[in-house]
Amino acid sequence: MPRRKSTHTETCPVARSVDVIGDRWSLLIVRDAFDGMRRFGDFQRSLGMARNILAERLRRLVEADILETRPASDGTAYQEYVLTAKGESLFPVVVALRQWGERNLFSHSEQHSQLIDKSTGQPVPYMAPQAGDGDVLAPDDTIVRKLQ
Amino acid sequence: MPRRKSTHTETCPVARSVDVIGDRWSLLIVRDAFDGMRRFGDFQRSLGMARNILAERLRRLVEADILETRPASDGTAYQEYVLTAKGESLFPVVVALRQWGERNLFSHSEQHSQLIDKSTGQPVPYMAPQAGDGDVLAPDDTIVRKLQ
Repeated sequence: MPRRKSTHTETCPVARSVDVIGDRWSLLIVRDAFDGMRRFGDFQRSLGMARNILAERLRRLVEADILETRPASDGTAYQEYVLTAKGESLFPVVVALRQWGERNLFSHSEQHSQLIDKSTGQPVPYMAPQAGDGDVLAPDDTIVRKLQ
Repeated sequence: MPRRKSTHTETCPVARSVDVIGDRWSLLIVRDAFDGMRRFGDFQRSLGMARNILAERLRRLVEADILETRPASDGTAYQEYVLTAKGESLFPVVVALRQWGERNLFSHSEQHSQLIDKSTGQPVPYMAPQAGDGDVLAPDDTIVRKLQ
């Protein structure tokens, strides 16, 4: 039976990313962290997940250098989970998931949360891959060059 | 114990998206579909996953209107799985995962596959959320406006 490739031998960046954050809980924890959530109890209330699973996912996100732990900002004994630079660079992934959901998973009559550009108060424009000249690239405009 | 919100009551577009495609296999099947893969056996060889799990994931992706089935293009009895318009619109999600992986999960000495703009032969530029004027938006430039 074919064996699942391990992350280290995988030469496709999509596959490596998916191995690190491609599960429901990790993506939603990262989403909440972008919303400013920092504490175990807050993640638990937001996500409604079992404590042991949340603890395990947080540990894995810290191990992967996506979150880091810090002493609580208010001086209490709590520990806080904060996005690292590597975690912050997941912003386009979360925005792409949001915008796909907005366009495809809500009926016209349904309302949803919105990502707002603070400087204008307007929703963040639709994000798409672009050529160097700014033209939007469709899938057919591109090709994956694999390693030999 | 808090209950997991169902997709229908969830007003966060990120959460709805993650409920539909937020698992390793679904994301990798969609990646392969963007690469032009269409047949059960080809997905299986590419992903090295059990036939029953692949069949179940393909069924779910068809149910979610991300893939659709078609008779084989070469006239054989095979069935092919092709991205729908809704599936094609996952392109920014796959590109965002790819670019995050390229930047964060490979050492300098490691090579990886590349997404190429066919018209220039160059790698697709880094994609990021932008303001209306084209300026790149960092997470701190934005805020999520939740429903009351």
